[in-house]
Amino acid sequence: MKMTNIFCLFFLIITPFFAFAQGEKTDLMPIPAQMQWQEGKFRLDRNFALSLNGTFADRLFGASSRFLRRLETRTGLFLKQGFISKKDNLASANLQIQVQKAGELKLHEDESYEIEIQNQKILISANTDLGVLRAFESVLQVIKADAEGYFFPCGKINDQPRFAWRGLMIDVARHFMPIEVIKRNLDAMAAVKLNVFHFHLTDNQGFRIESKTFPKLHELGSDGEYYTQTEIKEIVKYAADRGIRVVPEFDLPAHATAWLLAYPELGSKDTIIDPERKAGIFDPVLDPTNEKVYDFLDKLFAELFPLFPDLYVHIGGDENEAGRHWTENAQIQKFMKDNKIADNHALQAYFNQRMLKIFAKFNKKMVGWEEIMHPNVPTEAVIHSWFGKESLFKAAQKGYPTILSNGYYIDLMFSVTSHYLNDPILPEGAKMTDLEKSRILGGEATMWSELVSPHTIDSRIWPRMIAIAERFWSPAHVNDVEDMFRRMEILSIRLEEFGLNHIKNRDVILRNLAGGSANIEALKVLADVIEPMKKYSRNPKGELYTMLSPLTLMADAANADAPAARKFKILSENYLKKPNEADKAEIMKYLALWKNNHAEIAELCKKSPALREMEKLSENLSLISGLALEILTKEKTNRGEKILKTSSLLFEEARKQGGRTELQVVDAIENLLK
Amino acid sequence: MKMTNIFCLFFLIITPFFAFAQGEKTDLMPIPAQMQWQEGKFRLDRNFALSLNGTFADRLFGASSRFLRRLETRTGLFLKQGFISKKDNLASANLQIQVQKAGELKLHEDESYEIEIQNQKILISANTDLGVLRAFESVLQVIKADAEGYFFPCGKINDQPRFAWRGLMIDVARHFMPIEVIKRNLDAMAAVKLNVFHFHLTDNQGFRIESKTFPKLHELGSDGEYYTQTEIKEIVKYAADRGIRVVPEFDLPAHATAWLLAYPELGSKDTIIDPERKAGIFDPVLDPTNEKVYDFLDKLFAELFPLFPDLYVHIGGDENEAGRHWTENAQIQKFMKDNKIADNHALQAYFNQRMLKIFAKFNKKMVGWEEIMHPNVPTEAVIHSWFGKESLFKAAQKGYPTILSNGYYIDLMFSVTSHYLNDPILPEGAKMTDLEKSRILGGEATMWSELVSPHTIDSRIWPRMIAIAERFWSPAHVNDVEDMFRRMEILSIRLEEFGLNHIKNRDVILRNLAGGSANIEALKVLADVIEPMKKYSRNPKGELYTMLSPLTLMADAANADAPAARKFKILSENYLKKPNEADKAEIMKYLALWKNNHAEIAELCKKSPALREMEKLSENLSLISGLALEILTKEKTNRGEKILKTSSLLFEEARKQGGRTELQVVDAIENLLK
Repeated sequence: MKMTNIFCLFFLIITPFFAFAQGEKTDLMPIPAQMQWQEGKFRLDRNFALSLNGTFADRLFGASSRFLRRLETRTGLFLKQGFISKKDNLASANLQIQVQKAGELKLHEDESYEIEIQNQKILISANTDLGVLRAFESVLQVIKADAEGYFFPCGKINDQPRFAWRGLMIDVARHFMPIEVIKRNLDAMAAVKLNVFHFHLTDNQGFRIESKTFPKLHELGSDGEYYTQTEIKEIVKYAADRGIRVVPEFDLPAHATAWLLAYPELGSKDTIIDPERKAGIFDPVLDPTNEKVYDFLDKLFAELFPLFPDLYVHIGGDENEAGRHWTENAQIQKFMKDNKIADNHALQAYFNQRMLKIFAKFNKKMVGWEEIMHPNVPTEAVIHSWFGKESLFKAAQKGYPTILSNGYYIDLMFSVTSHYLNDPILPEGAKMTDLEKSRILGGEATMWSELVSPHTIDSRIWPRMIAIAERFWSPAHVNDVEDMFRRMEILSIRLEEFGLNHIKNRDVILRNLAGGSANIEALKVLADVIEPMKKYSRNPKGELYTMLSPLTLMADAANADAPAARKFKILSENYLKKPNEADKAEIMKYLALWKNNHAEIAELCKKSPALREMEKLSENLSLISGLALEILTKEKTNRGEKILKTSSLLFEEARKQGGRTELQVVDAIENLLK
Repeated sequence: MKMTNIFCLFFLIITPFFAFAQGEKTDLMPIPAQMQWQEGKFRLDRNFALSLNGTFADRLFGASSRFLRRLETRTGLFLKQGFISKKDNLASANLQIQVQKAGELKLHEDESYEIEIQNQKILISANTDLGVLRAFESVLQVIKADAEGYFFPCGKINDQPRFAWRGLMIDVARHFMPIEVIKRNLDAMAAVKLNVFHFHLTDNQGFRIESKTFPKLHELGSDGEYYTQTEIKEIVKYAADRGIRVVPEFDLPAHATAWLLAYPELGSKDTIIDPERKAGIFDPVLDPTNEKVYDFLDKLFAELFPLFPDLYVHIGGDENEAGRHWTENAQIQKFMKDNKIADNHALQAYFNQRMLKIFAKFNKKMVGWEEIMHPNVPTEAVIHSWFGKESLFKAAQKGYPTILSNGYYIDLMFSVTSHYLNDPILPEGAKMTDLEKSRILGGEATMWSELVSPHTIDSRIWPRMIAIAERFWSPAHVNDVEDMFRRMEILSIRLEEFGLNHIKNRDVILRNLAGGSANIEALKVLADVIEPMKKYSRNPKGELYTMLSPLTLMADAANADAPAARKFKILSENYLKKPNEADKAEIMKYLALWKNNHAEIAELCKKSPALREMEKLSENLSLISGLALEILTKEKTNRGEKILKTSSLLFEEARKQGGRTELQVVDAIENLLK
């Protein structure tokens, strides 16, 4: 019986939610595969010290030092132990860490670990130091306190991930992200046990990595905003120190404006004069019939691939459906005819076959979006699904290893619930064979950056990424949405220790919108009930915002899962199910707050024209809240019914966007009145 | 008559505070030398565009692009003009910029500028592009709004700095500061027209710059936390792009633990085994009688000086008074006798003379703290005063160029008022000759980093640095403290656009202290009335905190000039001068808030042991507030008088520190009851 089967058996008996000695809920996130708690406490004091034993990679010294400093941050204890070195292997230390071997940053590497907390001692054991990194994060999540101070509850955790590929993609092409943005997000990724950073380095709007062989790529393709090779190495090392693989993406053959701006001779048609500043799908595409293209890429990849030690490189390959430039290029058409290449898809497969040869030369395996799938592309390539699970399963059934991103497009501002409940396999994939299922390596959330700046990107990734990370790591049956929200909110605040600004930068935007004032209470009330327009509707045709447009307005302060709206929805649903005075009082409090809030917003709008795009929406919130207040107050009067009858227009109005945001309480308020 | 004299004459007629057409106060900070406003508005819309004309350094392209993006951030306008290049020199642009020549980053370079805002056009003219950078900051500070939208008021600004050397020193040795901390602070420095970044790179606790010649310096002396030479170049360029000179400091011959850890053979006595983790004054010092020291420094400076294009290099030179290792080294004593070197101060002067030769070889001028002043050290060296103005004036009178830092030690957490009213010359220096006065080049605030982390340093520098910058730039007569506070608060929020966390990180600390909760209202109330212990009292003997201790507690959330305490002090003083019901009601509101706040703090302490060090102080605040409430309510009753008589002990208790912070409302409350 394999380890995984033992775990499965275990869960038939004890599920993790109820495994606490005191019946208390765990704050751990992702929830471990297995845990058991018992009476007893390990007391934390400034003598707390750790000891490293066994065989491991050097990264564990730094990781141990960071673990101690974070423990200090949480507890305020002035620990005596400083930077960890080889000398820190004493048997007297109360945290004993035992490792079998150095972890390798490769797919399917062992990340399992075991933590045993006793009254006087903590033991962490793992097959690789990567397991210890994961264990550190779990330990930091179980700190508790009582009258005597901080402690760890006694108990045992046995943990390992459900999926081997647990990723976050960050697009640094649309909006460039300085190295510190990447670093703090790598820290947060490690905190939720993610292990793949997919680095979307090139796209129409930017070529973001220095090339010494073809310097025009970054010189002309980046507006000066690119990573030097030194910085790339620094990022790769930073990630590796945290047990995270870096998979770079060179999106080809389309998404190539920035490339062709520098080297137009590689393109299929037009000479490109200006950098692309808009969002959307564009025509510029490499010419796969031009031998110079392969020569160029061979030389470029010879230079750049060695910067990335990971076995995998992402070729992108998406969104060349139209292939207009290919269709309109007579020479390309002739080549296709001569070589019996049936259509554009087949031509792209031809390009990928050539790419695979180059990849093989440099010992790289290819990852690509679904568009690379073709009978001529062998099943050693990894298919990255943005189409959806049907297509993901198809790829797996054809023999391709796969990863899922459809359903994890965090840039589209959907509720975390939708991402959390999006399982890479279940329920539809349950009927696949075990072999087919094993080809589903995991998933990646995608942070496309058309509408984020370095100041807002954290808030689009976090906290929702925490829940997605749990989906990738924890057993499939972990799916209690309310408990997920509870734990996510706790961990979200903890992530601030890395300097993430996903919480704090909302107020920065609001202070600016208040005309440079600290008086932002009314703006907070408003921000708590709105969300940015979802999917691609915020930026119609990709043209309202360019890559230089300000991202410092109300839509940028708003986030998915507007907190007050969520609470109000639950509250009003409960009330409608079972009317009671307590809930009603709470509802009335919200309604009064929203009704009265507009006076202050209207005042702010006077001095801050940037806020005026919100004025109508804020007024509508006030009107529907006032209406609801009145009706709920005089519940049974004729006047209430009369108002209700004439109010549908009002609710319709209140659903209209303002400042590219939408009010999230309209349905709940309307339902209350029905 | 020189330009400066014209300005002086001008001020006899119109002082800037009253020069507004509408009598409105200006938000500009630092206040310009001269400004005049008139009726009329320049309307901002998305067609706003700038045109660069004349001769200037390339930095102006980037600076212009950044100016536009910041204008967008403030206004939310989607400006059409993107990155600025040579093509942006059109006569149709409504902001016309005219420059005479490229600015050089050197002392006394021309930074003057003129802005003329007309209804349809804005003209910026300057002798150098550095003047344009300063002008951009002024323009961004005069944006206003009315019913129609954003505008600039018509008028004219003629501006130039009062002092040529306007600096901020950041100590990156005690606590290392990642490059992004330096960058965002350089941005903020430029925003308040500072022009010298004094980079304190080495000290006992760290050697923070990569040396390829002597790699053990950074390898053994930095715990891996240092700037690579590439990063140093990046910082120097970043500063230069913002019109800021970088003056590096290699603090010698003392403050040398990190050096001697790597190369003990250069020291005067002990072999150093462990890195210094404490704060304070330490003995390790180079041996000035050892020729190898000069050979070493010659080679090291040959490598490092070229990274810093500025003419000046800071040699430190401070705090070797005791010179214990020199006194105790027989060989050194013999050398002194043989060479008729009278005392340790003379020995240090000998060292500096040798240094000056090396400096001269690399075309560098020396800056050093007062300790370098000696008859044998020529007056081409700049004396940096930390002793005080008496000593500063003495240096100036001896013929040394000087800069003042005494009175600008922002790490000591004094009120901004004390820094603001600390003039480098006036009033005591008024009687010096013009020549002597002209030797006072300006000043520098010093950010020593014993008690700051990358997460808190911004809050120790800003907003107080804004007021100091005004002292260095604006005419001497600009000294209205209340108006300074008003303008500083506005600009403080504006600085957040650079990612500075001086405002937002307070709540991060509080959320952590609340045990990872967003419920921090009571903690905010407390933070608003406390300040960190001042001077060196927070860290007795430099031993309570090591360089690894957590800086995530209440003392780190607190700041100088506790805002509620300041407001309450003004309020209660006004009330005592002229009792009235409105002020009294406001006072009672504060007292009730503080009285009731403790219940929540006590609750938080239960779940957050890190907060418990504040419990007593919070309780004391509650007790004295409750007492005052009771007495003020029953003002004339016997009970009130009786309570008051027995309360002096209570007030004494309330003055005691808690969590290394002090309550700032005790005097004001006690005075109310007298």
